[in-house]
Amino acid sequence: MCIQRPLILISNDDGHLAKGINELVGFLREMADIIVVAPDGPRSGMAAAITSQVPVTVSLVSQSPGVDIYKCSGTPVDCIKLALETVVPRKPDMVIGGINHGDNSAVNVHYSGTMGVVIEGCMKSIPSIGFSVCDHDPDLDFAPTRTYVQSIVRQVLERGIPVGTCLNVNFPQYAPYNGVKICRQTIGCWENEWATIPHPRGGGNIHWLTGNFANHEPHSTDTDKWALDNGYISITPIQIDMTAYPLLEKMKNWEF
Amino acid sequence: MCIQRPLILISNDDGHLAKGINELVGFLREMADIIVVAPDGPRSGMAAAITSQVPVTVSLVSQSPGVDIYKCSGTPVDCIKLALETVVPRKPDMVIGGINHGDNSAVNVHYSGTMGVVIEGCMKSIPSIGFSVCDHDPDLDFAPTRTYVQSIVRQVLERGIPVGTCLNVNFPQYAPYNGVKICRQTIGCWENEWATIPHPRGGGNIHWLTGNFANHEPHSTDTDKWALDNGYISITPIQIDMTAYPLLEKMKNWEF
Repeated sequence: MCIQRPLILISNDDGHLAKGINELVGFLREMADIIVVAPDGPRSGMAAAITSQVPVTVSLVSQSPGVDIYKCSGTPVDCIKLALETVVPRKPDMVIGGINHGDNSAVNVHYSGTMGVVIEGCMKSIPSIGFSVCDHDPDLDFAPTRTYVQSIVRQVLERGIPVGTCLNVNFPQYAPYNGVKICRQTIGCWENEWATIPHPRGGGNIHWLTGNFANHEPHSTDTDKWALDNGYISITPIQIDMTAYPLLEKMKNWEF
Repeated sequence: MCIQRPLILISNDDGHLAKGINELVGFLREMADIIVVAPDGPRSGMAAAITSQVPVTVSLVSQSPGVDIYKCSGTPVDCIKLALETVVPRKPDMVIGGINHGDNSAVNVHYSGTMGVVIEGCMKSIPSIGFSVCDHDPDLDFAPTRTYVQSIVRQVLERGIPVGTCLNVNFPQYAPYNGVKICRQTIGCWENEWATIPHPRGGGNIHWLTGNFANHEPHSTDTDKWALDNGYISITPIQIDMTAYPLLEKMKNWEF
């Protein structure tokens, strides 16, 4: 009997050389064939951006048994779009973004290039997962995430998730973890977002993005931020339909 | 009696010189004070991207009674973040993205820099609206949109919309319009997305983003695509909470 191995398409927003994506490949290569199509350098905070003004390129970096790695000059979403049309031999069984160096919980889902990858996979009706660790250290130890990543990937491959939905998985900064919590997206926003300094050559200021996340519901125990703040791995199921249905019904009474 | 005029913060993804944003200012300057902080050039398809690797700048372009126009070196979302912390004299009563040259209905909400502007305003608890016309012509005639834009802005200022929600308004390519429909986001995705040609200097191919939108539910009359295809202005209420609640409940039975 010959059972085809699953095919997993992987990308990220930290670039193909980042530790997180290469650790992820190591965690999954025993259970699946893997194709990586990742940016040729860092693309953090690129959200679901696409490259519309200039052309993009994709080129093979390395091949080893069951693992092909490509780099792409575009955004994380470009990587998935280009991989699906020009690289993969068949429709992948899964798209994964990560493992990201940094927290993608709460409203970060909107800014994250890693989640851009996942949302694009989801749009193409492929079960898709984003993995992130709440730590920006480029040399982070990803070993504690291994068994959880494998278990989550295996279960999604076996059970499936509904078309139009995907998963945003975040690991706390420090292991050991207290377990896994299925969460909703925390309500909150970033504050004090700019470090402003005079331009070194004069003529005005320059502004660096920084800031701190303000959790508007710190006592809600069902949110992804609460889970992460309390040592749990958060899994936030995400949908690409952003319609606000209650407001839709209400606005039917407005007159234009 | 002195009633303060509303303050509206406007940005876009076509840049501060685009016709659409300047027409919008003309439509609204009688009813509100206006501050424009828009990209210094085209940023189409930038979604909710933020600039994390390099600093950004903002500088005054022009001032006329009730209208200040600034340009910013960053993304559409950077424009709003920077405006709110360093430009506006008080919290704006509204954030508007547009008027965009091009369709932002259906899943385009995820890719659109115009809707990035709107989602950012919404995150900051400011009533926010995106306006787009389904036509990329840089010299487009925006006059048919005028009374609708004014009516929608006035009603949102008066009635308000719930925190965490915003509006994605799209106009059909051709006027006169058949009216306004309150819609949900169409299910579908882009297909045949790449025009591939050999690199003019050899060594491989280059890929230009193109493609066509595949409407997966062309006969559903409650979607924004259906409205636009049938001559109606679509208003799609959008929420920033992307949690997939039905899947959340289902996954509580999974074991990790």
